[in-house]
Amino acid sequence: MLALHFDQTIQLRTDYPIPEPESGEALIRVLNAGVCNTDIEITRGYMGFKGVLGHEFVGLVEHSADRSLIGRRVAGEINLSCGHCQTCRAQMRNHCPHRTVLGILNKDGAFAEYLTLPKENLHLIPDSLDDNAAVFIEPLAAACRINEQVQLVKDERVAIVGDGKLGLLIAEVLGRLLPHVKLFGRHVEKMKLVSDIVETSSIDNAPSSAFDVVVDACGNPDGLSQAMQMVRPMGTIVLKSTCAAGSGFHPAPIVIDELTIIGSRCGPFDKAIEFMQSHDLNLDKYISATYPLARAEEALRKTQEKETLKVQILCH
Amino acid sequence: MLALHFDQTIQLRTDYPIPEPESGEALIRVLNAGVCNTDIEITRGYMGFKGVLGHEFVGLVEHSADRSLIGRRVAGEINLSCGHCQTCRAQMRNHCPHRTVLGILNKDGAFAEYLTLPKENLHLIPDSLDDNAAVFIEPLAAACRINEQVQLVKDERVAIVGDGKLGLLIAEVLGRLLPHVKLFGRHVEKMKLVSDIVETSSIDNAPSSAFDVVVDACGNPDGLSQAMQMVRPMGTIVLKSTCAAGSGFHPAPIVIDELTIIGSRCGPFDKAIEFMQSHDLNLDKYISATYPLARAEEALRKTQEKETLKVQILCH
Repeated sequence: MLALHFDQTIQLRTDYPIPEPESGEALIRVLNAGVCNTDIEITRGYMGFKGVLGHEFVGLVEHSADRSLIGRRVAGEINLSCGHCQTCRAQMRNHCPHRTVLGILNKDGAFAEYLTLPKENLHLIPDSLDDNAAVFIEPLAAACRINEQVQLVKDERVAIVGDGKLGLLIAEVLGRLLPHVKLFGRHVEKMKLVSDIVETSSIDNAPSSAFDVVVDACGNPDGLSQAMQMVRPMGTIVLKSTCAAGSGFHPAPIVIDELTIIGSRCGPFDKAIEFMQSHDLNLDKYISATYPLARAEEALRKTQEKETLKVQILCH
Repeated sequence: MLALHFDQTIQLRTDYPIPEPESGEALIRVLNAGVCNTDIEITRGYMGFKGVLGHEFVGLVEHSADRSLIGRRVAGEINLSCGHCQTCRAQMRNHCPHRTVLGILNKDGAFAEYLTLPKENLHLIPDSLDDNAAVFIEPLAAACRINEQVQLVKDERVAIVGDGKLGLLIAEVLGRLLPHVKLFGRHVEKMKLVSDIVETSSIDNAPSSAFDVVVDACGNPDGLSQAMQMVRPMGTIVLKSTCAAGSGFHPAPIVIDELTIIGSRCGPFDKAIEFMQSHDLNLDKYISATYPLARAEEALRKTQEKETLKVQILCH
């Protein structure tokens, strides 16, 4: 099959073997996939990953021991846990130390004609969500994760730092749940996309000590320091950027201001699907370009252009 | 009066003016004071402080508008808040943006014959606590602060990183409240002081992903990275060290493992006093040396020797 493979270099393989489902796994024919900044980071060495890239997708189940799934349209959670270790038994399956992660850690990903995932990772897509929308379930779930980790209450002042793909999706979620959410970014055109649901402002005008909660989704090394400056004493920072502290990082304010910093990763697919439906989200506006799988390398290049938001890849 | 003053250099002043109490302040004759690592950091430039050093003390009230205080033995909370800003009204007086801090920020400190503090900062010392013990109220309150910020439950595995003064006091507190507390350090002799209440081990043998809560009190730049390695996924790190992240700090595990990091600073004096009494703590064993105020410079030098724990200064 056709697959975008990474092993030190990116290579479009035309002869990559169709994956064999392991016990409990379904074989999924990938329809659409989305390019995430994590994919780009991986091609720069992050996670030391080798294999087929990609983890945001919607697909059709072709084979499964559960025959009711066959032919159904699904999205898939990306963490494959062992299910029986202490961490899994403590209901923290996404943190299983034996896990693989689709397109990120020891598991071939979604920029291919086919992928496999365990049945319990799959979520049926309601007919009301088209393929383009369904690809956003994974990143939208990551946005919904914040609301699981932090008790956000109505009168809290929330700032989101970063107007990239994830920052905007976080604005879509938090802006609909809370009245005082402000997005800080550098790109007027990107911020316009959410200006009907949150206030927006240039990061250069970000006030100090002004927010109860600051979400760092800017994906650059100054993100954590920036958030530390914006949050009030005893406030909370939600960290979404894995590269959030550069060499000039000074942790003293964490102690002096008794800040709480919470790392936040993958989120609940069921809540993301429900959120999309109940709020009738229009996410098409975030799609900057769509490429066929045969031009997946171009899709990755396009993602790295400054003005680009989501790039999708048509895998079938 | 005699006072140990810092303004780029440390100087023992013999002619320093006795402080004039401002409205609401009491004049306190300092009996004993304790040297904290923060004092040492200040003499290296931390906080840009100029003035009389020192913030751990016990003293006698000489003047106060509240005459019932005169002649009483007191310890004093170190943050002087404005009392009427938004932060103060939100019951976060220790974080008042207009605050001064005894011996740390715009307020002359305790390595002197006299100091002044607002009446509401003072705590009466019960007769059962002698002067040596009373000087430990401030750092013990910082240890008790952890228990206010983190919901510690009985079966949780707690690690303390650092066998310095603060790490040992944290062991004294948490080791008496919880059954599974382990202290990791580098100094066998220091760790022996708490081996009856907590397990102890060389930091070189610290296990990975093994603790629900890790308290970093080691005061060196690798502390946060060390704690991040020891804590389990979705676990909590309590940060007591203001210099806890060196140049090689990589924040990705905070996000990947969804860690919570909580900065922790000053704590509740009332709870520290109660804890000392109810557990009949013997803290004399932590006093490595005592100097008269006239030899306060020596006290600071002694504090920086590797084997030293608490150094006290007799101010009267």
